[in-house]
Parts: sequence; C-alpha cells; structure tokens
Amino acid sequence: MAPDIHGLLLSGGSAFGLDAAAGVMRYLEERGIGFKLRDVVVPIVPAAIIFDLGMGSGKVRPGPDQAYEACLAATDNTFQRGSVGAGTGATVGKVLGIESATKGGVGTASGKVAGSWTVSAIAVVNAYGDVVHPHTGQVLAGPRRKDGPGFQNSVELLSSQVQQDLDLAGDPSTTLVVVATDAPLNREQTGVLAKAAHNGMARAVQPCHLMRDGDVAFALATGRSGQVRDVDPLLAAAPGIVAAAILDAVYQATSLFGVPAIADLARAE
Amino acid sequence: MAPDIHGLLLSGGSAFGLDAAAGVMRYLEERGIGFKLRDVVVPIVPAAIIFDLGMGSGKVRPGPDQAYEACLAATDNTFQRGSVGAGTGATVGKVLGIESATKGGVGTASGKVAGSWTVSAIAVVNAYGDVVHPHTGQVLAGPRRKDGPGFQNSVELLSSQVQQDLDLAGDPSTTLVVVATDAPLNREQTGVLAKAAHNGMARAVQPCHLMRDGDVAFALATGRSGQVRDVDPLLAAAPGIVAAAILDAVYQATSLFGVPAIADLARAE
Repeated sequence: MAPDIHGLLLSGGSAFGLDAAAGVMRYLEERGIGFKLRDVVVPIVPAAIIFDLGMGSGKVRPGPDQAYEACLAATDNTFQRGSVGAGTGATVGKVLGIESATKGGVGTASGKVAGSWTVSAIAVVNAYGDVVHPHTGQVLAGPRRKDGPGFQNSVELLSSQVQQDLDLAGDPSTTLVVVATDAPLNREQTGVLAKAAHNGMARAVQPCHLMRDGDVAFALATGRSGQVRDVDPLLAAAPGIVAAAILDAVYQATSLFGVPAIADLARAE
Repeated sequence: MAPDIHGLLLSGGSAFGLDAAAGVMRYLEERGIGFKLRDVVVPIVPAAIIFDLGMGSGKVRPGPDQAYEACLAATDNTFQRGSVGAGTGATVGKVLGIESATKGGVGTASGKVAGSWTVSAIAVVNAYGDVVHPHTGQVLAGPRRKDGPGFQNSVELLSSQVQQDLDLAGDPSTTLVVVATDAPLNREQTGVLAKAAHNGMARAVQPCHLMRDGDVAFALATGRSGQVRDVDPLLAAAPGIVAAAILDAVYQATSLFGVPAIADLARAE
C-alpha cells in the first residue's frame, strides 16, 4: 500500500526522540507530500534514534519543533557532520563505561558505481564497540587507555572477560546507517541494499550487532524510472561506502561533555 | 516442537546434494537419535549445499550413501580441510569466470571466550567474491591476474563495471558457515550467534551476500545446562573466528581440475 517513504528521521534522545518525527510529518503535510487517499495526505516518515541520554542532561531531547526547524533548514548543499544533529551526543567504545569512551558523530561518504550511479551513505555512530579501519584493523576510536594515548581493543576486552565477571559497562548503543542511490532499484533490490549496509558496519564497527546495539540500516532509491538489471555491483560497493561514512563520523566529531573526539586527542598529543 | 537438531549436512552437488541428508538421517535413525514421538524417531538434519557442478563432471554428486559413509567415518580427532568433503569443488573469485577463479575449500578455526567457553567455526568457501585478509584488506584468493602473479580485486572490478556492460560471469556461489559453542545458549542467543557469523563473512569475503551468493550461517550450542547471562562476548568474538575459518579454507585448499589453490600458486612463484 505504501511502498514510498517521504521523509526519514535520525535523532538522538533515545525513544523520546522518535516523537520528533511528528515535526517532519507536519512539514510534509503542509506541502501536500505524502500517501494520498481521497482528501487525506499521510507522510510516511520512518524514524530511528540513538541512546545519548548519558551525555549532558538526559532531560534535553529533540522534539517535533526541532525536527520542523531542521526541515526548514534543509539544503542541497554541503551539510555539517561530526557532533551535530543526531550525532551530537554519540559516543563509541563504551565497553569500559562512558568515562573511557570516545566521541562519535554523524558522517557521510559517497561513491560512483557502474559508471553512472551514485551510492551515498550517512552514518550516526553511537556504537558500543570501536570504529576500526577496515584495511588495517587499527582501532581509530574506542575505549581510551588510562596509561597513555591510544585505545584498547573492545573485541579483545570482551573476549577475555571472565565468565563470572561479566557485568559489562556502557549505555545501550546503536549505529544508524542510511544508504541512498539514484539507481532505479525495485523494492526487493532496495531491501538487499539495506542488508549490504550491515556488511559495511561489520567492517568498520567491531564489535557491532551486539545485544546492546540497536543497529539499523535504511536503504533509499530515488530513481523513478528504468530498472537495474543486476544489483550486485551496487551490493559490492555499498559496504565500503558505508564503512567510509562511519570513519567520517569519528574523524569529524568534536569533544563534548568531557568525552574527547579523536581530532582533539590528536591535537593534544 | 523441534528446537534441537541432530545432524547438519554441508555438501557439494548443488540442490542435488541436499538429497545426501537422507544418509545422515538413516545413520541417526538406526541409532535412535532424533525427535521422538511415540514409536517414531525423526532425526532433524538441516542441510546446505554449494554449487560446484562447473568443476569436473556435473553428473558426479554426493548422495545418501556417501553421507552415510561420512557419518561412519566421523571422528572427534583432527579432520581434513581444504579441497575435501563439501569443499571439494569450491572456488572463489569468479567475477571474471571460473577460468580466472582460485580454489576454495573447507576450513576451520576455534577460540576461547570469557575464560571457559569455546567458539569454533567451519566454513565452506565457494564465494563469488574474494577471500580478503580482514586486517590488511589484501586479496588472499580471488580472480587471478592474466599478466602475472596476484589477484584482481572483485569489489573494484564490480564497482567499475559499466552499466550497459553488466553481464557478469561466474557460477552461483555460496559461503556456508557453521559456528558452534559449548556455551549453554538459549534459542534466541543461538539465533543471534548465527547473525554474528555473517559479520565474519563480511570481513573475510568481499563482496559477499550478493544476489549470486546463497550465503548461509548455522549456529549450534551444545551446552545442555546453565545459561549465558550475557551473550555479547560471544557475539564479539565469533566474527573473528569465522573469518579465520574462511582464511583457513583457502590456505588449506589444493588445486583441482585446473583451478589453482593459493598454496600451489605460491610454490609456482
């Protein structure tokens, strides 16, 4: 009945933040954008949030008015990344608690596929685990060492936990990814593109997809005509583009509420 | 009704190979192992296969008798890996056709988690894409260069395909993974462990999960008592162990029907 979506909301504020989608719906309804049935227009606006209530005051949450303002401020031009928007309160590497965490954020990356199509990704990185360079295995952002610069490795920390001692610290976490393409994908192809985005998470966030993580990937295809005969080139390219967006999120982040960003850690060294 | 499984079959022979599960069921029924209801015993034997009919004669397929023989030969000791069993006809890096592919196979790896639990994985690697070292991004086994030693990069080959020219070569492909642990997991925890295995595929097989791939992961928990309060350490460790099993498959492989294994390519250099 409603194969199209008209907006997509990524937000902080934990489950309270889902309420902000009402502001996007208000904006779209005013412009007549939505699922039309006789005299009603229902904008379809999926929403996903991160848990960031451990940063600053847990009482400060984005609501419909903030989302409406964001719609008014929307632009086709370059947008801000790092510790802004849904990425404001994002942190990564929380295995040893938020005291040792590193600042996450929102990032983006884009690439060309098959000569003509563009695949772009946005990632809001609030992972329980680390952001890892997919080509070196190096932890780029994770639980900070207490005895000097650099990070511990969350996979090693978790694997070496003693069974009796498993009382893991850290807030509930999530990596949110949106992967979008101008290729004219059908519904099934768009669905498998969302699955390919999870492969990008697996490469750049380690560990990811834990029970403590609410990892979500959305896929959007803007193409309105034509069809893609073979979606595999897009599926092959998407994980690397998603991984690059995840790296961008921590590279662009800035320190907040005592949680340092890697750009600031590098400056301090 | 049937939460337990009594056997698991991985086989070559494409969909014909699924028939071999009947041999495992025969073996188990003779020993009274199965789902018991009054005077019947039904062994529950999930099965998964790879498409390897492009290697040697497509008419040679394993059947119930071969699977029954395999059950009789089963051992608790070290078992053969590489180009044996379900891995016999496995190949990887088929983007340029099977003429350029490299030999796949069956591999295994194991690790300790949380001091007391073991996580082990078996992988049958018959991927369309490449086997990639998860810490270096290096293609370990993929489509072989025509102009010298080494491999091309399938993700790059696929991404740079021109849209009009998308007529990809290569047989249907699959990576089969079984991840097993002695940790006493419940049904839900065992399910998420299977998902974690897919993260290991994403790290070591690139691209994976294409429409041309029938990638499958099974998870088994042998623990009969107790419970795991927190499954996240197992989920954190599993992808690395699965990735190591995938690498083992191509390291252990031997050349067959003109498709060279990397061990033989290294010797030839």
